[in-house]
Amino acid sequence: MTAEPFVVRHVGPDPGEERRMLETVGYASVDELMDAAIPEVIRWHGTLDLPPAATEAETIAELRAIAARNTVAVSMIGLGYHGTHTPAVIRRNVLENPAWYTAYTPYQPEISQGRLEALLNFQTMVTDLTGLATANASMLDEGTAAAEAMTLARRAAKTKSPVYVVDADTLPQTISVIATRAEPLGIEVRVLDLGTEALPEEFFGLHLQYPGASGAVRDHGDLVSAAHAVGALVTVAADLLALTLLRSPGEIGADIAAGTTQRFGVPMGFGGPHAGYLAVRAGLERMLPGRLVGVSRDADGNRAYRLALQTREQHIRREKATSNICTAQVLLAVMASMYAVYHGPDGLTAIAWRTGAHAATLAAGLRAGGVTVAHDDFFDTVTAVVPGRAEAVVAAAAEQGVNLRLVGTDRVGIACDETTTEAHLAAVWAAFGVPRFPGRAEPALPVGLARGTDFLTHPVFHRHRSETSMLRYLRRLADSDYALDRGMIPLGSCTMKLNATTEMEPVSWPEFADIHPFAPAAQTTGYRQLVTALEGWLAEVTGYDAVSVQPNAGSQGELAGLLAIRGYHRDRGEGHRDVCLIPSSAHGTNAASAVMAGMRVVVVACDADGNVDLVDLDRRIEAHRDTLAAIMVTYPSTHGVYETGIASLCAKVHDAGGQVYVDGANLNALLGFAKPGTFGADVSHLNLHKTFCIPHGGGGPGVGPVAVRSHLAPYLPGDPLTAADSDATVVRPAISAARHGSAGILPIPWAYLRMMGPDGLARATGVAVLAANYVAARLRGHYPVLYTGNKGLVAHECILDLRPLTKATGVSVDDVAKRLIDYGFHAPTMSFPVAGTLMVEPTESEDLAELDRFCDAMIAIREEIDRVESGQWPARDNPLSNAPHTAAMVTADEWTRPYPRSVAAYPDGVDRAAKYWPPVRRIDGAYGDRNLVCACPPPEAFEN
Amino acid sequence: MTAEPFVVRHVGPDPGEERRMLETVGYASVDELMDAAIPEVIRWHGTLDLPPAATEAETIAELRAIAARNTVAVSMIGLGYHGTHTPAVIRRNVLENPAWYTAYTPYQPEISQGRLEALLNFQTMVTDLTGLATANASMLDEGTAAAEAMTLARRAAKTKSPVYVVDADTLPQTISVIATRAEPLGIEVRVLDLGTEALPEEFFGLHLQYPGASGAVRDHGDLVSAAHAVGALVTVAADLLALTLLRSPGEIGADIAAGTTQRFGVPMGFGGPHAGYLAVRAGLERMLPGRLVGVSRDADGNRAYRLALQTREQHIRREKATSNICTAQVLLAVMASMYAVYHGPDGLTAIAWRTGAHAATLAAGLRAGGVTVAHDDFFDTVTAVVPGRAEAVVAAAAEQGVNLRLVGTDRVGIACDETTTEAHLAAVWAAFGVPRFPGRAEPALPVGLARGTDFLTHPVFHRHRSETSMLRYLRRLADSDYALDRGMIPLGSCTMKLNATTEMEPVSWPEFADIHPFAPAAQTTGYRQLVTALEGWLAEVTGYDAVSVQPNAGSQGELAGLLAIRGYHRDRGEGHRDVCLIPSSAHGTNAASAVMAGMRVVVVACDADGNVDLVDLDRRIEAHRDTLAAIMVTYPSTHGVYETGIASLCAKVHDAGGQVYVDGANLNALLGFAKPGTFGADVSHLNLHKTFCIPHGGGGPGVGPVAVRSHLAPYLPGDPLTAADSDATVVRPAISAARHGSAGILPIPWAYLRMMGPDGLARATGVAVLAANYVAARLRGHYPVLYTGNKGLVAHECILDLRPLTKATGVSVDDVAKRLIDYGFHAPTMSFPVAGTLMVEPTESEDLAELDRFCDAMIAIREEIDRVESGQWPARDNPLSNAPHTAAMVTADEWTRPYPRSVAAYPDGVDRAAKYWPPVRRIDGAYGDRNLVCACPPPEAFEN
Repeated sequence: MTAEPFVVRHVGPDPGEERRMLETVGYASVDELMDAAIPEVIRWHGTLDLPPAATEAETIAELRAIAARNTVAVSMIGLGYHGTHTPAVIRRNVLENPAWYTAYTPYQPEISQGRLEALLNFQTMVTDLTGLATANASMLDEGTAAAEAMTLARRAAKTKSPVYVVDADTLPQTISVIATRAEPLGIEVRVLDLGTEALPEEFFGLHLQYPGASGAVRDHGDLVSAAHAVGALVTVAADLLALTLLRSPGEIGADIAAGTTQRFGVPMGFGGPHAGYLAVRAGLERMLPGRLVGVSRDADGNRAYRLALQTREQHIRREKATSNICTAQVLLAVMASMYAVYHGPDGLTAIAWRTGAHAATLAAGLRAGGVTVAHDDFFDTVTAVVPGRAEAVVAAAAEQGVNLRLVGTDRVGIACDETTTEAHLAAVWAAFGVPRFPGRAEPALPVGLARGTDFLTHPVFHRHRSETSMLRYLRRLADSDYALDRGMIPLGSCTMKLNATTEMEPVSWPEFADIHPFAPAAQTTGYRQLVTALEGWLAEVTGYDAVSVQPNAGSQGELAGLLAIRGYHRDRGEGHRDVCLIPSSAHGTNAASAVMAGMRVVVVACDADGNVDLVDLDRRIEAHRDTLAAIMVTYPSTHGVYETGIASLCAKVHDAGGQVYVDGANLNALLGFAKPGTFGADVSHLNLHKTFCIPHGGGGPGVGPVAVRSHLAPYLPGDPLTAADSDATVVRPAISAARHGSAGILPIPWAYLRMMGPDGLARATGVAVLAANYVAARLRGHYPVLYTGNKGLVAHECILDLRPLTKATGVSVDDVAKRLIDYGFHAPTMSFPVAGTLMVEPTESEDLAELDRFCDAMIAIREEIDRVESGQWPARDNPLSNAPHTAAMVTADEWTRPYPRSVAAYPDGVDRAAKYWPPVRRIDGAYGDRNLVCACPPPEAFEN
Repeated sequence: MTAEPFVVRHVGPDPGEERRMLETVGYASVDELMDAAIPEVIRWHGTLDLPPAATEAETIAELRAIAARNTVAVSMIGLGYHGTHTPAVIRRNVLENPAWYTAYTPYQPEISQGRLEALLNFQTMVTDLTGLATANASMLDEGTAAAEAMTLARRAAKTKSPVYVVDADTLPQTISVIATRAEPLGIEVRVLDLGTEALPEEFFGLHLQYPGASGAVRDHGDLVSAAHAVGALVTVAADLLALTLLRSPGEIGADIAAGTTQRFGVPMGFGGPHAGYLAVRAGLERMLPGRLVGVSRDADGNRAYRLALQTREQHIRREKATSNICTAQVLLAVMASMYAVYHGPDGLTAIAWRTGAHAATLAAGLRAGGVTVAHDDFFDTVTAVVPGRAEAVVAAAAEQGVNLRLVGTDRVGIACDETTTEAHLAAVWAAFGVPRFPGRAEPALPVGLARGTDFLTHPVFHRHRSETSMLRYLRRLADSDYALDRGMIPLGSCTMKLNATTEMEPVSWPEFADIHPFAPAAQTTGYRQLVTALEGWLAEVTGYDAVSVQPNAGSQGELAGLLAIRGYHRDRGEGHRDVCLIPSSAHGTNAASAVMAGMRVVVVACDADGNVDLVDLDRRIEAHRDTLAAIMVTYPSTHGVYETGIASLCAKVHDAGGQVYVDGANLNALLGFAKPGTFGADVSHLNLHKTFCIPHGGGGPGVGPVAVRSHLAPYLPGDPLTAADSDATVVRPAISAARHGSAGILPIPWAYLRMMGPDGLARATGVAVLAANYVAARLRGHYPVLYTGNKGLVAHECILDLRPLTKATGVSVDDVAKRLIDYGFHAPTMSFPVAGTLMVEPTESEDLAELDRFCDAMIAIREEIDRVESGQWPARDNPLSNAPHTAAMVTADEWTRPYPRSVAAYPDGVDRAAKYWPPVRRIDGAYGDRNLVCACPPPEAFEN
């Protein structure tokens, strides 16, 4: 926190460095460079209408004032969000540790073993508790996990029925998300009170909440059997804490379990971010969406972890996709898994027992005071029946600082959790006007559903009970990994820039962390002020009219944007428009989102320069003129180029009655210089975790707001909580479970925009473009730069073409990527958007020393490739093919490589004192896919 | 933060592990073990009268409530404590990062290169700004730095005069500390207004404040010349921020500079901790007290840092000592140095300029409004003359949330700082009743004193301006080091236990961090409540009647305790009692403290079992019966043994009219089982950074409260601020500059005591003793355990005797200590209290797995020694003599050692995936002492 302009801390190069970079690129100033790079047709000349930049100190002071307008109350609302004690050792050493939060998605598994191990613990925790075979490495939230479960069930079901049954005692926001997702896919959702209503004759899937939203714990065995009898699959949305005491979904026959891990130590954060989970029975594992961590082996045969089944965004199967999710909630999943590691099965069971006992005691007190309690069997949530008095009771509790759930006029829901105390119970009893109950009851769970199976038996869930041991475990895992706190992560399309501490600190404040998403509005004035301001600023910088921060990942933003287009066409009587044009260079997610929005994907070709082929575009438009719904393009393109045809492209699509969707992934090349909303687009999603400094967290959280022009504003996401109350067609879709999505991390982009101000944002853009062109200029002589735009310039990233070299030498992009590890770097994006290439995005936050270190390494690697080409090193046994080199390998007693150890360990320019050693050698992904293991292997497996 | 008992997180072994450890030691329970180990004569049976243990969540809630009773105001009081913006990247990644705060003092330099580099930066910062040749690696605060400067001047002065002149415009608390320190040494302090009063004819030293406490900036040139003319030395207590604009002390001829670095990003913390500094001109460097970091080289000839001139506590020259300080303020010095690194010379100058401009503008406004300003030349502090109105003005400012300094009835001091804003100035003008001043003035510094020399020219002060670069620099340095977050630090006498996150978190809260030590009492209710509770709890656990937390290190606690004894004897008319008995096994600091308290040291022998020789004790008492002032003993002894003669020893000394001082360094072996205050001692100091969980911070902060029985209570430290106002003899000494010492970190021991409760404290003691006996039992067959007490048991630590092995094989304690690094450990304490031995204190926080890992490593090393003994490995070229092994060494292309690389890199049992590589090989300390370099070497020096 300092009092000088923040921009000098955020932007890496200082004025002297900037001058030297400009000299290399051949321009006199950044302005001149930008004038040359950006097509005038889209160029926006003006000053952003944002407050002028505040210093870090001023920003923190403003955020403190905003935070003070939120009220931290005792939250007994429940509905999937619960108070929890974040173990301080986990908060400080994970959530507040840049080694964890600045890491990228573990696509380079050799330098991601720490978080992959943590995620494997997460998967083990979920599979053990749910009693199912395989869990993925987290979902975006419970609502979207349930929606993914629905589509998974549809794929796997033996029946062709379009009916999906949802029990009425399901979380209302989950029902909203399911309904939103079902409609474009032609799925018919039937919400039935299965306590009284019968199942339909045909349906492909059944969704049950366990325990129910009302708190009731029911034996779902008969329903499961009935579903299976008609070929349907059953999803049980289960509370993991309750599962320490209850029969698991697997034992009651569920095919799928879905839910959230929030109450495992992750603050509520006004709705997120938290890690959702999704688990499936054996046989369904290859249908799991999202990211799955698996065990494989490295080149030395040692055990190693990596993402299994290539479930990465580059490999999303485009128009054949069944899910568009790529990002997970890694940082939060790590926290939840560490909560389980720290407490172990005994500790978790004790917490559950205490929670259940509090609820049972609460119910006993209510009953003793003459209040009817709706259910005999419940875990943590009591539904009290107080005809006509519900509002008064809730208000009385609020007076004492306790939030309860108002259920209509006659019922009140009260959820206990880990943080519940006797004082809280006393406050609740007082609110109901019943006397304080002197006794203590045991949890009110049905005997027949008592858990009889072990869980978390793996040693990792038993070894780290002291804080000292936990601290060291977290450090050891973090030390395995490479994150922004070690060096540059030059990932094309992912904008790995500074996540400033001042942006991060407020996330931990109780006034932001400990707010329930359904807390009364009077308690969340600060949050709503922050969201409104942020949405306004985002609209201003993108040129749109309205923004919703609800989508909690870029993929969800895409879906929200396409659903807005869908709604717009429908309401104009053009619901038949369902063709979505997508250039061949597009991110796979685009096509997947289009499919999920009920559209048909039509691919538009790219020309030899990598730009959208406008002739082919004309052809496609002509072919689909009457059914054209939209085009989705990324700008600057995924090739890292400012395409000059963009304005013309927009006009053509508009002329044909289509809408233009501009993917905001590359907004870091535009801010302050061009606005999609003014150069022709109708809708965009933004990636707050790319351009706006939310850290990648090792693979999530992301935030993907959707921004639209005014005609689409009525179709922005609505409130998932109240949407379910209405019987009307859902107009405003429910994209995430919480109204403002991952609200808990919105202070980060708010602070970024507040501290950069209009000039700072433009400067960041200019320096990002300068840095990419600097790298391109320095490396062009060694690796061809594949595509360029105006005057041979790239935008904020550049593609290095390795294909000719690979052809000549056999050295692959993989080899170069892994060799970069030996040089102390994270690899650029590999083989996206063009196979056999590397895409480099340096961002504005890297200073010249780091840019040069990277360029020097790439040039040195080029020289190494020469040695392979010349035959000096064998094609299959050289520093590139053997990279990365571990310390164990290079210190082995025997060394038979045709190059010296020093070349392996300390290639040219590597600082010996700061060497990062990867913990494993190159990992064999195919082996792991053939032998799929997605939970902690038994310790014996580690003996060798 | 969890809801279960904290003790299970603090104590490493779980019940099962405890059982296995007891089996090895041969006892059925910890109680039985303690009954056997602790002599019944001192055993205290009871339950500590402390509040029962609170959970982490409850403790944080209570601390939040306490914090809420402090008021964070705008602080314009000045007097050496200033508002400052701690750069968030430094707060999060240093102050809040266990890799920095759990590190030990860098006595093992090979695994401390990161913090040694940071401290070298600190020394460079101080020498550059002060214009002097050599600075040490921090002092405890400005007051004690000034006192050390006084004694240094006395040693170095050419005159024998006992007179020390202090300019009246010196910080009042500094004058108090100087007066306290001077009295027992026979130094006559004369406080003179050197603006009007003449220097005496003879004096050995002169202390000047620059700028003065009043804010006045004076040219001290003539005074310096006059002092030098009579053979006196001159100390200039200079504000480092002002020195960016002012001629340096070195340029004006000062011999010594002293002061604080608080305003370089270290929060005020109600008085501390902050790093003081001390710098000297060429020729005086070998007289510097405290710790000095120097540059040397390692076994490969590579540059390496280490503590120079053996200025470590083990080497304190006992009765010949001139200073007793050992601990520095490393964590805070690192923060201050990083503040300088982050801002660089330009940034610091800009901050100073802005601060000075604010002050000048403030003065201009006052003058424009008719208020007299006392000085024309000033830096940041304006003294306004408002006859009779001072109190009213201060009150009016306080109404607006601004604290000013009340100077008698007629003057008000107003200090600007980095955080001052125009709004603050407006509030001040309003308080004076003068109109808002529209202009802006330039700093009001005398032209003749403008700084003309460069500073911080070293590249490190220019390279890390972006937060990204700073973050990576901090990580790189932290990664060089070994701290508790990597593994065990089994340091005898230093109790390196868990520093729990819940204890640490409140330290960062603004309500604790941002409070000026002289803030009005109404604003510090919370702090005073916390201090009172803590002092009460410490009295209870030690059996004393009164406690003062003022001493900000153990050494200061010793001095405070001995001064209490001195005062007590004096007031009883026995001021001639000046003999202090000290056993030969005592910590060197004890003797040094006695000398500083004006006592003569008489050494008492130890017997063959290492215990105080009671026969020799009788002899010494007899010889000094009439002059016996005190005995200082450590209990359990520095040999790690519960001596059975302690009660008898106390009685003998008391019979002879002496007082008993029990050094509380080993209190971790007593809490809950014995109380020094009840078994015969009159006074102790405690080490809150040992027993009570304040982290060592890499070599400070420490806190050393003094605890006394009621007859000594009147002699506990007083308020340094008001002491100077009185003309009476100082009865209550001023030990530190601030009333409550390092108050900012007192939430840590408060939280520890609150969470452990009476039972938890006793359990910690029991497990600590069990762990030491477990290690002794496992290693006894491999290394003799030197001393034991009752039933062959040790207390909380044990001494492993390597002397026979060294004699037989040449393998030294150094070799074993350095080889332990290869095994992934910090060495135990080397050659203290017995040369040629290792002292191991495992503490209660290490679990059995870690204890076994250590024992296994020691046993494996023993086997390696056997191979040297058997001649299998040469005596001068073996894994022990060459330890530690760096990665660079083991991966070198050539390997000519008589043992394989794998033995060097991964000795038995080392986890390859979690290997810690030291950045340098063994360091040649003597070389560095011969070629003393104590500032950052020029970059060219790094070329090789």
